[in-house]
Amino acid sequence: MLDLKWSPNEKKAAHAAFESALSRERLSIRRHVEVLLRDTNDGTEIWAIRDYLNEKARELDQKYDYRYSVLISVFARLMAEGWLTLEDLAGLDIAKCELIREHSAAWRQADA
Amino acid sequence: MLDLKWSPNEKKAAHAAFESALSRERLSIRRHVEVLLRDTNDGTEIWAIRDYLNEKARELDQKYDYRYSVLISVFARLMAEGWLTLEDLAGLDIAKCELIREHSAAWRQADA
Repeated sequence: MLDLKWSPNEKKAAHAAFESALSRERLSIRRHVEVLLRDTNDGTEIWAIRDYLNEKARELDQKYDYRYSVLISVFARLMAEGWLTLEDLAGLDIAKCELIREHSAAWRQADA
Repeated sequence: MLDLKWSPNEKKAAHAAFESALSRERLSIRRHVEVLLRDTNDGTEIWAIRDYLNEKARELDQKYDYRYSVLISVFARLMAEGWLTLEDLAGLDIAKCELIREHSAAWRQADA
């Protein structure tokens, strides 16, 4: 939990970055659904798609938490996972970007 | 609830008919998923697909009940909904086919 100040412009930039990441991840989920549909065509794939989407819904619901108190950590994870780039965060101040970059590296190491 | 006798050959035919109907309905669900994917491509469609598949899973789970005590009624509904034809039931005795046909007509009327 971090108690940082977010200016109105930063809030706007943060919101746009958050939505961009979410949109990219949704499109990636869609592409995986398309792959599952391509791989099998006897109809049983619909249950694999259902399981996959339920799992992803749970994951995204937990991950995309837009509270300013946790947003640095959320952005760090999204960056570590490739859904967000530093360019997306151009509207945030340098200290926040640096924090996100550091946390992101920690996420990547924990994931490796 | 009906207490009918099912010969081994009838059980085999009933099982095949049940699986045919289930397979047709799964393929129809798959086609609807493909339509949902075609209609939207901003990624948000994945949640509509998830809701649709969860709803269908609940429906099919309730509908496809392979207990001989309820099978006449199950087949009647599947026939009323178009997932099963009388030809699929060729392996059943005439009395059962007639029962299924009658119950199916009742289902259709209830649905109309």
